Amino acid sequence: MTTHEAFPRPESLRPRKRADAERNIEAILDAARIVLSRDPDAGVGEIAKAAGVGRVTLYGHFPTRADLVTAVVQRALAEAEQAVDRIDLAGDPRDALHRLIAGSWSLTADAGTLLAAADRALPAEDVRAAHDGLLARATALIERGRAEGVFRIDLPSSWLAAVLHSLVHCAATEVAAGRLAADDAADHIAATALSSFTPPA
Amino acid sequence: MTTHEAFPRPESLRPRKRADAERNIEAILDAARIVLSRDPDAGVGEIAKAAGVGRVTLYGHFPTRADLVTAVVQRALAEAEQAVDRIDLAGDPRDALHRLIAGSWSLTADAGTLLAAADRALPAEDVRAAHDGLLARATALIERGRAEGVFRIDLPSSWLAAVLHSLVHCAATEVAAGRLAADDAADHIAATALSSFTPPA
Repeated sequence: MTTHEAFPRPESLRPRKRADAERNIEAILDAARIVLSRDPDAGVGEIAKAAGVGRVTLYGHFPTRADLVTAVVQRALAEAEQAVDRIDLAGDPRDALHRLIAGSWSLTADAGTLLAAADRALPAEDVRAAHDGLLARATALIERGRAEGVFRIDLPSSWLAAVLHSLVHCAATEVAAGRLAADDAADHIAATALSSFTPPA
Repeated sequence: MTTHEAFPRPESLRPRKRADAERNIEAILDAARIVLSRDPDAGVGEIAKAAGVGRVTLYGHFPTRADLVTAVVQRALAEAEQAVDRIDLAGDPRDALHRLIAGSWSLTADAGTLLAAADRALPAEDVRAAHDGLLARATALIERGRAEGVFRIDLPSSWLAAVLHSLVHCAATEVAAGRLAADDAADHIAATALSSFTPPA
């Protein structure tokens, strides 16, 4: 391959080059997700090796490790958004919140230590921004619940959505530390979120 | 200084050397706190410069950047624990929780971006472990509130303490992102924590 690089190529080879690049990017992102889920501190060399590409190829697509982690996290979150869009959020807002939490928790648990990799490679604000799509879905449900008089209106809905996001991440940390059983996480998050979305008696 | 290093020293110089080392460590920790509070990604070279010591001296005391960040965070949290110990946590557990939150928020706001530096340099579990002393104080108050029948008993107190910790950090992220006014943070945290510590009506 590298010996060809020095020569101009006929136009007919260009699409293949593009296809190769796309295949490499896919392989790198797939490998990065698996490797980072095992070890949030895994280096770029390890990821390149798992993807079956050279470091130079990887750096050609992702100039820094943070760029690669950002791309992996964005892809994982785009998939999470699609999964959340399949959750039925109609009906009683409290029941819908319960379903949203169960779905969000299962996605978070699947993401495993990928979250830890993101927290360590990227500024907190960037990680939060990558969650914007998910937070928008939570905010819409919270606002419907407020309009229907079941969720509190004495706190901004942006704050309540941020609280929900924090509770899910809190549960992930507690499960990782062995202080909370993974099977109990969704119920704990829901029991806490439901009461925090309602003013104290 | 370096030219002396090669020669054995009379015993009488040893205490001065120890005093020098202690002064250097103090200077490095003070500088690291200030520099990291300005820029959570500040490098060791910048911290050494601000402390007025050489990189070799700094690395002699803190072999890695993570070691240095850990020491800064531990010192900041030890001071925070002393500050929390001065908060009156007697009386109605709800009022005491309010005072604990106001104090914790003010300490968190003062710590500024030092928290971000910790989150990025250290595993989440290590950051959480450094907060153990503060969490133990929160847990004691939560358990008293449960014993007095004002806080819920359907969720473990370790979970409620972790939720409180998450809410304070959630507020810090929201304030840093400009989505929450710093002056509103303590009230938002308290309003959320108080209701999440009570089962929904």
